Amino acid sequence: MTPVITAFDWVPPFAQGQVRDLRVRWALEEAGQAYDVLYLAQGEQKAPPHRGRQPFGQVPTYEEGDLILFESGAIVMHVADRFGGGLLPADPAARARAIEWMFAALNTIEPPLMDHAIATIFERGKPWSAPRLPAVLERIDGRLGELSRRLGERTWLDGDAFTAGDLLMVSVLRIVAGDGLLAAYPNLVAYVARGEGRPAFARALAAQMAGFTGSPPPAILAWLKAQEETT
Amino acid sequence: MTPVITAFDWVPPFAQGQVRDLRVRWALEEAGQAYDVLYLAQGEQKAPPHRGRQPFGQVPTYEEGDLILFESGAIVMHVADRFGGGLLPADPAARARAIEWMFAALNTIEPPLMDHAIATIFERGKPWSAPRLPAVLERIDGRLGELSRRLGERTWLDGDAFTAGDLLMVSVLRIVAGDGLLAAYPNLVAYVARGEGRPAFARALAAQMAGFTGSPPPAILAWLKAQEETT
Repeated sequence: MTPVITAFDWVPPFAQGQVRDLRVRWALEEAGQAYDVLYLAQGEQKAPPHRGRQPFGQVPTYEEGDLILFESGAIVMHVADRFGGGLLPADPAARARAIEWMFAALNTIEPPLMDHAIATIFERGKPWSAPRLPAVLERIDGRLGELSRRLGERTWLDGDAFTAGDLLMVSVLRIVAGDGLLAAYPNLVAYVARGEGRPAFARALAAQMAGFTGSPPPAILAWLKAQEETT
Repeated sequence: MTPVITAFDWVPPFAQGQVRDLRVRWALEEAGQAYDVLYLAQGEQKAPPHRGRQPFGQVPTYEEGDLILFESGAIVMHVADRFGGGLLPADPAARARAIEWMFAALNTIEPPLMDHAIATIFERGKPWSAPRLPAVLERIDGRLGELSRRLGERTWLDGDAFTAGDLLMVSVLRIVAGDGLLAAYPNLVAYVARGEGRPAFARALAAQMAGFTGSPPPAILAWLKAQEETT
């Protein structure tokens, strides 16, 4: 049975290549597992029937027969267990450490990085955003420095084998890579480049980008225009 | 072999009963697994040898023979797989859904709730905190409303069985329960109370509280005093 994921048919340019179905597509590509995509127009994610799949009105979701899952971290773990691809090692201790890095990516690193997106995109132009930004950047730099020191000269977080932990960590670091926030840490820049250099990542990214065939609704166009005017 | 976790010997009053070793203690108690605790004084978490266990200088960690883990979500998952206790169902679909709720707790619900802690505790008194607070509360209320609608009249998130997803979701909701942010959602208030009513939770909380036998370093005392003066 071919799994079906959900993705958007359009997102603003800054989000293209970042929407979280990319993480699930990447895992499926690493496992060599074909999948189908149900595309949602902007707005559909907040209404039935998608709310029934995803209580928070987000993408991606994953459907495989009667199983419906949301949360990209959980879907990546399911894909790794269901279809292989080496994302979760067989050795129990190595598996536990790969899972540790999955949670580190999503619970320790991603929240401060998303805070940067809130400050510079979603709350851009709010009176508090500029004065607050140094504190946001300081928290991010603290975490990135710690991650950089732990990664050291390793190829991947737990050594020589790419795992689901690396898949999620590279995905998370990509949130701010384009803003130059990794530049002080050459080993993190090289780590992201190694992740992006995997053929499975390239296929996943190309597939996400090829899916943006829709149009934004008028309300979002107006919001984007307002954002540009505050630049 | 008895696992060893790390915890603090002192935290400020607002953090007592909230430090994340509580989540691991709770999982171990649900599984009926004894454990030892290595207590750290404030400051020790940022220096060797603890940095070797935990690259981000946090608690808890988990050691079992040669296996050293950090990230409370990953440790809870390991404990559930290693020692049972019903936290992860045997049925593969039910297991995947329990894991889905673990990630939802830590990646969808906890980040906006921690943002409230940042605004009201760690950045209290900063010029941007008060003007920004309404936006923080709006994001939180959006997520809590969605969670409340999904929980509905269920006992636990996936139905009648308490899982590791509930353990983490209750733990996360407790971050803001004392601030009254759940009050608009009686089913969430009752859900947290059901979680806190479990004997394993009570044992875990008592054990964390009993471990606070240390003293704060002078720098932290000065910070706390400054916080009080800005109240």
